[in-house]
Amino acid sequence: MIRVTTFLGLGEMGSALAAANLKHGAGTVVWNRSPGKAPSGATVADTVAAAVAADPVIVACLFDLTSVHDVLDPVVLGPAAGGLAGRTLINLTTTTPNQSRGLAAWAADHGVTYLDGAIMAVPGMIGGPGSAVLYSGDAGAFEANRPLLDRWGTSTFLGVDAGAAALYDMAMLTGMYTMFAGFLHGAAMVAADGGSARGFAAMQAPFLAAMTGGLAGMASTVDSGTYTGQSLYFTETALAALLTASEEQGVDTRLLKPVHDLVRSQIEAGFGAQGTARIYEELRR
Amino acid sequence: MIRVTTFLGLGEMGSALAAANLKHGAGTVVWNRSPGKAPSGATVADTVAAAVAADPVIVACLFDLTSVHDVLDPVVLGPAAGGLAGRTLINLTTTTPNQSRGLAAWAADHGVTYLDGAIMAVPGMIGGPGSAVLYSGDAGAFEANRPLLDRWGTSTFLGVDAGAAALYDMAMLTGMYTMFAGFLHGAAMVAADGGSARGFAAMQAPFLAAMTGGLAGMASTVDSGTYTGQSLYFTETALAALLTASEEQGVDTRLLKPVHDLVRSQIEAGFGAQGTARIYEELRR
Repeated sequence: MIRVTTFLGLGEMGSALAAANLKHGAGTVVWNRSPGKAPSGATVADTVAAAVAADPVIVACLFDLTSVHDVLDPVVLGPAAGGLAGRTLINLTTTTPNQSRGLAAWAADHGVTYLDGAIMAVPGMIGGPGSAVLYSGDAGAFEANRPLLDRWGTSTFLGVDAGAAALYDMAMLTGMYTMFAGFLHGAAMVAADGGSARGFAAMQAPFLAAMTGGLAGMASTVDSGTYTGQSLYFTETALAALLTASEEQGVDTRLLKPVHDLVRSQIEAGFGAQGTARIYEELRR
Repeated sequence: MIRVTTFLGLGEMGSALAAANLKHGAGTVVWNRSPGKAPSGATVADTVAAAVAADPVIVACLFDLTSVHDVLDPVVLGPAAGGLAGRTLINLTTTTPNQSRGLAAWAADHGVTYLDGAIMAVPGMIGGPGSAVLYSGDAGAFEANRPLLDRWGTSTFLGVDAGAAALYDMAMLTGMYTMFAGFLHGAAMVAADGGSARGFAAMQAPFLAAMTGGLAGMASTVDSGTYTGQSLYFTETALAALLTASEEQGVDTRLLKPVHDLVRSQIEAGFGAQGTARIYEELRR
């Protein structure tokens, strides 16, 4: 018997997930709010109820929390009530940790096994090297569905708290977005003197990749509460110079100034001789 | 004849530079404002004038621009006036691009060949793998002194504008500091649920290193002025969720909020469907 999986949502990411399943020759039922987007080889369901009825495992990759409820509440509560009971919902829709926890409680109320997932990749990476998906919630659902999950990328289970995958996802994305914004700030600095962004990226990318090697050491000082390494005093001087240079290059400092402010707040609190990772204390309130 | 190099300044970085020179068996004359810090094997000069007189190549690694003038103006202008004329000054003191340009003009006024350097490493890395130093200013001085410079790390010459090394250095450090701060923000998010910073760093470091692979593509859209890739609309939704999750985890949002603001400004300007790298236009004023 061929195992079939149902996919709700065929946006860019949902389509990539379904396509990776099809690539492994696995049965694939799809449903999308607007028709006509189904990947070749998939069976298209006309209604959510029909899609859900096709298989005990449902993968949802929708726009947001509201879409999940819009799509699944009628199956749970409406004319087709009970249609989800006994099934497993693997929800890859982007939600906050608390929203994931709310969905886990909603699922438990309706007899649904819930596994939350957070995708650490862009759609084009799904199924290829470098694609990773974090999971949390029902441990049995994670183990039972490994063949399916591993089609998308490296699967990591973070625990039974359904919010954990979303939490680590969002914590990691914070570093990514601040890094990207910092890179664009630097590109604007060199552009003022005629430097190309590509030329700058060729220097910045390997430098930042090398600097990620310093995160473990910073983390150790955070966990120990004994902050060593480059002092806040030293970093304050460096950041002040960066702000001056940015202004001289005509670059907006609204991104960089808060980093300087975090350092200054800790110096004003009397910790200037301690390591710069101490701005963690400023961020954690 | 053994080539001798003079080092002014024996802070942590100046000492590392002199030590790397000594390690290659090269003659090393050192001077520091406060005595007693000389690395073993170096010849200690009692005065700046004596240190400068020892060799045609002077390496300065002092606290800041003011220290460079405090130390060298007397040699140039005072009783020992002219002591620097005809010599080469390799200045590795951290300065802003405009300060480096000012020093190049000051050097030219006094018949001194000027090479500016910016060290992309911490003192412990000097002379080892991963250490890199950017240079700009006098091209002949860079070429003539390659054996000396290459003792510290990979040497890259960025052009005759003496401010270029400091500019690229500071542009790259912006990405580093924002990345570090973003990492600490993420660590604070997971700490609220009991996650360790070390455990988070073990996930965050490889993820960020992989994401540096996206900088070249972002740079291409910046250089072309045609912004493709993940839309500002999408990123705005993601950042709003990150802010909500941060607040729910009790994390201060003063670092992350400006990134969201940059995205919102570009959406309000009518560019929401364009790629997120368009926040570059917001940063470059």
